[in-house]
Amino acid sequence: MDEALLKQALEFGKPYTGKGEVASYIPELSKADGRELGICVRTIGGEEYHCGYWQRRFTIQSISKVINLAMALEHYGFDAVFHKTKMEPSGASFNAMSRISDNEDIPFNPLVNSGAIAIVELLLPLGLDHMLSSVRGLCSDKYITMDEDVFKSEWSHSARNRSLAYLLQSKGLIDGNVDETLLLYTQLCSLSVTAESLSNLGQVLANGGVQPETGRRLLKEEVVRTTLTMMLTCGMYDGSGEFAVRVGLPSKSGVGGGILSVVPGEMGIGVYGPSLDSKGNSAAGQKVLEYISRTEKLHILDRYTRHPVSASETF
Amino acid sequence: MDEALLKQALEFGKPYTGKGEVASYIPELSKADGRELGICVRTIGGEEYHCGYWQRRFTIQSISKVINLAMALEHYGFDAVFHKTKMEPSGASFNAMSRISDNEDIPFNPLVNSGAIAIVELLLPLGLDHMLSSVRGLCSDKYITMDEDVFKSEWSHSARNRSLAYLLQSKGLIDGNVDETLLLYTQLCSLSVTAESLSNLGQVLANGGVQPETGRRLLKEEVVRTTLTMMLTCGMYDGSGEFAVRVGLPSKSGVGGGILSVVPGEMGIGVYGPSLDSKGNSAAGQKVLEYISRTEKLHILDRYTRHPVSASETF
Amino acid sequence: MDEALLKQALEFGKPYTGKGEVASYIPELSKADGRELGICVRTIGGEEYHCGYWQRRFTIQSISKVINLAMALEHYGFDAVFHKTKMEPSGASFNAMSRISDNEDIPFNPLVNSGAIAIVELLLPLGLDHMLSSVRGLCSDKYITMDEDVFKSEWSHSARNRSLAYLLQSKGLIDGNVDETLLLYTQLCSLSVTAESLSNLGQVLANGGVQPETGRRLLKEEVVRTTLTMMLTCGMYDGSGEFAVRVGLPSKSGVGGGILSVVPGEMGIGVYGPSLDSKGNSAAGQKVLEYISRTEKLHILDRYTRHPVSASETF
Amino acid sequence: MDEALLKQALEFGKPYTGKGEVASYIPELSKADGRELGICVRTIGGEEYHCGYWQRRFTIQSISKVINLAMALEHYGFDAVFHKTKMEPSGASFNAMSRISDNEDIPFNPLVNSGAIAIVELLLPLGLDHMLSSVRGLCSDKYITMDEDVFKSEWSHSARNRSLAYLLQSKGLIDGNVDETLLLYTQLCSLSVTAESLSNLGQVLANGGVQPETGRRLLKEEVVRTTLTMMLTCGMYDGSGEFAVRVGLPSKSGVGGGILSVVPGEMGIGVYGPSLDSKGNSAAGQKVLEYISRTEKLHILDRYTRHPVSASETF
Repeated sequence: MDEALLKQALEFGKPYTGKGEVASYIPELSKADGRELGICVRTIGGEEYHCGYWQRRFTIQSISKVINLAMALEHYGFDAVFHKTKMEPSGASFNAMSRISDNEDIPFNPLVNSGAIAIVELLLPLGLDHMLSSVRGLCSDKYITMDEDVFKSEWSHSARNRSLAYLLQSKGLIDGNVDETLLLYTQLCSLSVTAESLSNLGQVLANGGVQPETGRRLLKEEVVRTTLTMMLTCGMYDGSGEFAVRVGLPSKSGVGGGILSVVPGEMGIGVYGPSLDSKGNSAAGQKVLEYISRTEKLHILDRYTRHPVSASETF
Repeated sequence: MDEALLKQALEFGKPYTGKGEVASYIPELSKADGRELGICVRTIGGEEYHCGYWQRRFTIQSISKVINLAMALEHYGFDAVFHKTKMEPSGASFNAMSRISDNEDIPFNPLVNSGAIAIVELLLPLGLDHMLSSVRGLCSDKYITMDEDVFKSEWSHSARNRSLAYLLQSKGLIDGNVDETLLLYTQLCSLSVTAESLSNLGQVLANGGVQPETGRRLLKEEVVRTTLTMMLTCGMYDGSGEFAVRVGLPSKSGVGGGILSVVPGEMGIGVYGPSLDSKGNSAAGQKVLEYISRTEKLHILDRYTRHPVSASETF
Repeated sequence: MDEALLKQALEFGKPYTGKGEVASYIPELSKADGRELGICVRTIGGEEYHCGYWQRRFTIQSISKVINLAMALEHYGFDAVFHKTKMEPSGASFNAMSRISDNEDIPFNPLVNSGAIAIVELLLPLGLDHMLSSVRGLCSDKYITMDEDVFKSEWSHSARNRSLAYLLQSKGLIDGNVDETLLLYTQLCSLSVTAESLSNLGQVLANGGVQPETGRRLLKEEVVRTTLTMMLTCGMYDGSGEFAVRVGLPSKSGVGGGILSVVPGEMGIGVYGPSLDSKGNSAAGQKVLEYISRTEKLHILDRYTRHPVSASETF
Repeated sequence: MDEALLKQALEFGKPYTGKGEVASYIPELSKADGRELGICVRTIGGEEYHCGYWQRRFTIQSISKVINLAMALEHYGFDAVFHKTKMEPSGASFNAMSRISDNEDIPFNPLVNSGAIAIVELLLPLGLDHMLSSVRGLCSDKYITMDEDVFKSEWSHSARNRSLAYLLQSKGLIDGNVDETLLLYTQLCSLSVTAESLSNLGQVLANGGVQPETGRRLLKEEVVRTTLTMMLTCGMYDGSGEFAVRVGLPSKSGVGGGILSVVPGEMGIGVYGPSLDSKGNSAAGQKVLEYISRTEKLHILDRYTRHPVSASETF
């Protein structure tokens, strides 16, 4: 891993910026420049590599679901979380009614909107300040703030999430605090991060929950394991399965253009590329990650198989 | 890993045999004894550990989908296979109409019935004899044969699969050879294996496609990577997501009671326990695997995180 | 038609009160006495026949959808209404997510909850007072008021309708006035009527929109035709088709236990029987109507066919 | 009613031939000339009016479902038929998987493909010869034969219906005779009729099951009532509701371009116009019927309401 590789990866991904479109369903998001592309890598050994628009601020959007899940697991435990959602990937598209339907009692998983809203209700006692400070800590980025313009834009276009939240209430999955829950959910989506922030978050996850620089444990090992598993099976909307085959790294995308990827035991990766494919994932960002995964053989089911089987080992 | 551990794991799983039921939708399958439980482990170093009913013969059922996928990838390549199915996990239940609906152009993945039937059509030119000999080779088990009674029972209860096959034909995903395709599909489901056979197959997959004992490459590395990824995201019907969280090993179950699990780079595991939970997975078999995965820290997203982060590594 | 017939009909229906249950999803509704049964008939010639609990007050619930549809058609016209919903029966169950899904752009029809909520938004400019006075006029019942207890109970259990309303907003089918719309919708559901009130409403519809006693036209002819057609195809939830076959009269049920039935050109019928079948329709009320329709040959597709074909007519 | 009116109606409908397309999913059907349009009316008094391509032969297609339903009701009774399908309209589109899904135990109604196939199984004991002779009798058209070319074309494109038939078998709704059932079903779809044949069939239905010319009862009164009700609620695919509102006559369309309409107590109407709208109904044919229904006030819920309410009647 070095910056030359990242440069090649961005070159490889660049043409795909033209194959997607910047999110437009929230007006404020449509102001991003779809041609931008950036990446930052943080190894658990403490090195950092970056290239392109790695310092551009953008809103975290659905990547916040990863943090919300981890925080809910950390503070309230496995059973409290999975009382509210299942753990099943769903093949749900980005703009689907998020797979809670009449036939479903509870949302499919914590990374679709309905499940994430249910999870955020658990976080209400912590409150925005605590959450913000946790996000800053996990991302080693004290400059993370709420992007007021994006927040306002999303808040005034939240009818669909509101519909989901009331559906959850009607099923007894959230209480009467629908408005507070939606508010916190939307605020957490509107936090502005950089590819570097995400790579720092990824580094902590790659290191089992311990921040390498400080040696401080930010998340329990089992919280990290569960969170990474959900990212691997459900992190890229209805492109999760194909991304798992092609890239094979626990990842989570957001419609702000970010992708968080984790190479367990090795590094965190943050990518920024706001031009989205039809599934809501960064069009070029995915290609950048595919390039790096293939070149460096980072696929989670490839790293084992590549070990040469020496004669002495085998017999 | 030793046989004492396997014994403990079976003890742990035993009570769960009473929480499921032997498959009854195919009359012949209902003759199995739901109390039986067995396991076999084959490391890539060549060791074998086993316990309980590890030599009981049972039909491979849906685990054949793994072999069919691997063979189709090996012989016809990635594009030919994923022209016929997507790669998305679906949250589909065991007895669902297998997630090919009017809104779907192609099946969700190669491990649901509809996708698997489409894949088997690719294998028609190879034929049953070639396939049988491949299965025997992959499983290092020359005693594998078709269980005629189970085959006849399934063949006479194949209306649902027949419905799927004609739906595939109507969508242009299989050709006029519906009957040949269904015949081969059903024959391959009816092959009788043991937990040991499955552990041998798992050993090859754990070793990147090379059979450790002979050093012969049976499957290409990329075929193994893709197959293992599909197993991880889609291998346990609509329990795949939870199984990935709890056990974290690429696995595939069959309604005959078998589970194939792979610890990449380390070992293959075969489990037999014909008492099934409501999702069609061996009720006790899953618990046995959960016990082993936890005790030995085999979860694919745990193996990284367990590495102690030494000071020298970190800085 | 006479009161002896009504008495027989109630006798016929009586045993079916035990085959249903009083609505319980709104606590206040569960206080009704499921054994009660009553009927009132009003012919366009001005006669009235009644029997049983024909004067019991109960809340109109979904029968208000008929009035809302008629009023919206009357004041805003066919195109304004059917810009918001389709006209298709849907096979939707009483407690379904009312058939507006991701695949649907607009609700199926104005008599399912989602469609009815969209329609009520059209009525906002009229306001509750105007609507209440219209309902009193159509029902010739100046004692109709809002049942405050039922209203409060429904308003505090409106999460599901709220979910639908925000879904409608997200699809651009209603504007920012979600709360006002839901409020008016729920208020109109909470109006307390009697079987007699409903029979008066039915009399107006049976008479093409003209109130026979006063000769005043309350609804345009084409409004009545459209409203009756929607009642015939969609008025009894997912029992509409079977009810059309068995009874064959444009009708609308409510979970308060009421059924409004119209014999075009002849009479209006109101029935009260709060014990509901699994589809949300009055269990005994339907049987009472079936008895009357059969005995009097009122089925809308029977009235023609029963005319004896005399030789002189035929040739 | 006179031929001048029919001429005007065809003029009115003519432009709509350009707004649809001839069916192409069955190759043989695509040979029809989409510009053709014809109509025939038969009153129960014995008059006949016709205009345009009223003598063009075309295949009956889904209109055969009406005859199949009537024959099944006639020979095997209400309970035998509605053991196999419900009576609910479904909002199902022409090319939908015909609304029998995993969540449904039985088809929605006898006029969607799945329901119709289940019904045809009941007719197997009668056989093709008996059925053909019955169709000729009901249509007063001894020249009706099976169009061999269309039959062959449909038979070789029957994968979707075959899929439905096996799904029915898997649910126990048809027996092992899938092939015989599909064969008879497809043969009955391939009978070649004219607008005049359909008008004769409609005349019998309009007259309560008695053929006016001969005075012979061909169908029981209750069979006619049930059949007409199903036509009214489900006869025009997912355009049934709107057609009921706009035209208001029990009708059934076929992708061959025909529409059968019934004015109960008055007349039968047959229309031919092979250019279909997106729902599979004759684009111009529907407009022709709408014109006639409006001009002559034939809407089934209008005929009552149009009666002037005289003072003496009212009081």
